[in-house]
Amino acid sequence: MKRFLKPVTALLLAFAVLCSLALCAVPTAAAEGNAPKYVFLFIGDGMTYSQFQLAASYQGANADTDDGILDGDVALNFMNFDVLGNATTYDSSSFCPDSASTATSIASGFKTYSGVINMDETKTIPYTTIAEQLRDNTDMKIGVVSSVNLNHATPAAFYAHQASRSSYYEIGQELIDSGFDYFAGGGLLKPTGKNGDLPDLYDLAAQAGYKVVRTQADAEQVTADDGKVLIVTENLADSDSLDYEIDRQQDVWALSDYVAKGVEVLDNENGFFLMCEGGKIDWACHANDAGSVVYDVLAMADAVQVAVDFAQAHPQETLILVTGDHETGGLTIGFAGTNYDTYLDNLNNQKISYAKYDADYVSAYKENNTPFADAMADVEALFGLMLPEDAGEDGLVLTDYEVEELEKAYEITLNGYAQDQEGKPVQTQQEYVTYGTYTPFSVTVTHLLNNKSGINFGSYAHTGLPAAVFAQGVGAEAFAGSYDNTDIHHKLCTLLGVENLAG
Amino acid sequence: MKRFLKPVTALLLAFAVLCSLALCAVPTAAAEGNAPKYVFLFIGDGMTYSQFQLAASYQGANADTDDGILDGDVALNFMNFDVLGNATTYDSSSFCPDSASTATSIASGFKTYSGVINMDETKTIPYTTIAEQLRDNTDMKIGVVSSVNLNHATPAAFYAHQASRSSYYEIGQELIDSGFDYFAGGGLLKPTGKNGDLPDLYDLAAQAGYKVVRTQADAEQVTADDGKVLIVTENLADSDSLDYEIDRQQDVWALSDYVAKGVEVLDNENGFFLMCEGGKIDWACHANDAGSVVYDVLAMADAVQVAVDFAQAHPQETLILVTGDHETGGLTIGFAGTNYDTYLDNLNNQKISYAKYDADYVSAYKENNTPFADAMADVEALFGLMLPEDAGEDGLVLTDYEVEELEKAYEITLNGYAQDQEGKPVQTQQEYVTYGTYTPFSVTVTHLLNNKSGINFGSYAHTGLPAAVFAQGVGAEAFAGSYDNTDIHHKLCTLLGVENLAG
Repeated sequence: MKRFLKPVTALLLAFAVLCSLALCAVPTAAAEGNAPKYVFLFIGDGMTYSQFQLAASYQGANADTDDGILDGDVALNFMNFDVLGNATTYDSSSFCPDSASTATSIASGFKTYSGVINMDETKTIPYTTIAEQLRDNTDMKIGVVSSVNLNHATPAAFYAHQASRSSYYEIGQELIDSGFDYFAGGGLLKPTGKNGDLPDLYDLAAQAGYKVVRTQADAEQVTADDGKVLIVTENLADSDSLDYEIDRQQDVWALSDYVAKGVEVLDNENGFFLMCEGGKIDWACHANDAGSVVYDVLAMADAVQVAVDFAQAHPQETLILVTGDHETGGLTIGFAGTNYDTYLDNLNNQKISYAKYDADYVSAYKENNTPFADAMADVEALFGLMLPEDAGEDGLVLTDYEVEELEKAYEITLNGYAQDQEGKPVQTQQEYVTYGTYTPFSVTVTHLLNNKSGINFGSYAHTGLPAAVFAQGVGAEAFAGSYDNTDIHHKLCTLLGVENLAG
Repeated sequence: MKRFLKPVTALLLAFAVLCSLALCAVPTAAAEGNAPKYVFLFIGDGMTYSQFQLAASYQGANADTDDGILDGDVALNFMNFDVLGNATTYDSSSFCPDSASTATSIASGFKTYSGVINMDETKTIPYTTIAEQLRDNTDMKIGVVSSVNLNHATPAAFYAHQASRSSYYEIGQELIDSGFDYFAGGGLLKPTGKNGDLPDLYDLAAQAGYKVVRTQADAEQVTADDGKVLIVTENLADSDSLDYEIDRQQDVWALSDYVAKGVEVLDNENGFFLMCEGGKIDWACHANDAGSVVYDVLAMADAVQVAVDFAQAHPQETLILVTGDHETGGLTIGFAGTNYDTYLDNLNNQKISYAKYDADYVSAYKENNTPFADAMADVEALFGLMLPEDAGEDGLVLTDYEVEELEKAYEITLNGYAQDQEGKPVQTQQEYVTYGTYTPFSVTVTHLLNNKSGINFGSYAHTGLPAAVFAQGVGAEAFAGSYDNTDIHHKLCTLLGVENLAG
């Protein structure tokens, strides 16, 4: 874990102040006749008001002085941007849309069904994305960065056109065909197809002229002279994504490093368009893992800081947008069990993501049929939750009721759900709502830590909260006010002088 | 119930279109040197993004055509305002602040502790409100409207200065002393003091020169010639507030009628400042009653429409602000049990607020020890939830698990919580989280209807989501972007040319 917050409260505050100063130096110019040359579009997947406000309040809780008066939030850099918009996020399927359709709306300006990438509702008509428009009609270079797989829905929506977001191989082929200048982040899913029998996408990318980089040492050597680049992390975490920020080792590239390298590769006299997705915010929200959400939102802010710094050097030419595609998890800063209080610094007890805990610990519990008490020793070390008999030590003491909940979840985790007559494990309605599709024990651990921090999740899926749009720099004014997520595309077209094919 | 939504879908759509047209006619003028003469400040108590987005999505669900493609939200009038801001809401106590402190921040520009009205954290220094400033330094008339009690926290924050929001009598005295021109809404709490032995506040108001009006017939006769007016509903609902909109009879004044009468009373050549609180949005959210939330948000939009219509006649002189003080209930448009789906039109089954159901039905169940099945017949009629054995009829069939939850809650409702050794009823931790302080049966009924609609609440208290600020008209631009709720006060001072005593 890179951050260890209690001791770095002062650093965080200093960072916030520096950010404010840095932001002051980036004037927001009038949009008319002044197209941005450098465009950064950050999409926090699953990140709307709940997520960034939680991160800001968490920083505030840690920075709070001990005088009995709450000092409030410590805003993230983008929360201080000059311009604020609010975008509705529904898609053609639902008020709880998915990342494929919402990223399609942002990238190509159309609504479509959940799960569909840049195709209409009949799944026959492809839509052209803003990134493709810029590739074809300007000399701007194009980059796509994601903390999850580069052929996952959100990055795919900038270059692919598929009836199903699950067509990973075909999306990967479109990635290669796009000819975009810079791809970087998590590994490609299904690089040899569903059955593992197709030509390797990385080989195809190399054949198509991409410099394919799969180690961090090599990535560090990449320069603008390398031409088209595809960088994939060598630290493959869950589902071949980047590490959750909470799990990331100090010397491993953060999301911000992939953006910084992108700026180095893309920077040229004709400008660039760089989309960066903070995809693991969404994954952490799905899993109801608030600690990991906070860290990945902060990692996103660090990535945004690269753009802010770049804008300082190019103040009259840069536009930075920071938005989300939809809310995930029904995250609330507040919980029925804690009334009007929050205890956000309790999240400091968490040292590991649910996913790494599952992979590194829970799988061994299952294999070894580990006694509950032994698992709870790990839970105390990694999440700060302790059994009542250990009260008095430094940590969060569980109630008898909470221990029962953990025991119940542990039993299911080791032995599975009760089986129906055909021997198939079946969740009860209560189990479905309580655990979703996650490991019952680890999701109960994060639920309990969330709740003891005064936080709650109401869903394992996406919700209908709108998305904030923060904008700074040349043309930012266009993004003020209330609109639909398709308007983000429309405004970009107008600003960048390309035809609005959805207009 | 006034609205019966299925049949009036077309009406709602027409209303939305008309609103859009009406709004187009109200230009947003530049703030510099152009102070608004007429200022409307609407505060949806407990209303932030979740609440108005739910109402918009609910309208959208009801208006949706049957072609398999979701048409999206039907935005409320204020959601189309030209200018959008976002305000942080924390107070000196908590990231889950209360209405006293947050309304203090809006009204006088200071943070303070939860529960405190216009006093500093030492509870010794009073703060002057923007309404008092305008009373003392301009010739503008001042009005305060609320759907809850006129000496409740939010309205009080515009005229009172008290260490405790519970000092209702003293707040009432300050209401009278304020000399504001128009008060209208719910009845005064504790009008003869805590012990009922103090001079009646209504008498004192009359002695101080207020025309005290306590019937709707008399209220209808009120004109600007009546001088200072205090109008209190004769239809005293829960805790002497106005009816929940869902319960309101067609011929009973809505919140919009109190605002319309306010405009009539306040309109004069020197302008006015009118604050209107939609207070029952908060109460419904506390109780996790989503149906009542939607109706009261729509009632708020109706009240805003009065201002929009007024602004059409005074386009170069009017400013309308619509905001919330904090989020209540941790409301999410999405629920773990319904995955990526919502079924918002299921809320159409609800015909009564939880509060009226408690008062008119549940109290009788307790008195008569009514059998569960009889209560469930009411639940089917009033909320559409039906027992599995009634499946096939028109309604929402409960699962066995849900029926068990209802039976458990009903048993507690009739017989109370289990008692401790001293005979005192005590909630278990699970009961506390499941029922809060509400009637177990009715809150379980609304929870089940919410969840079957794809909605969830995570708290019975307030949460830390920021508040949207919608602005339209003269000076609206000042309210764009991201800021703290105290800035709403500061911006109003600048715009209206009164000294910012918090600056």
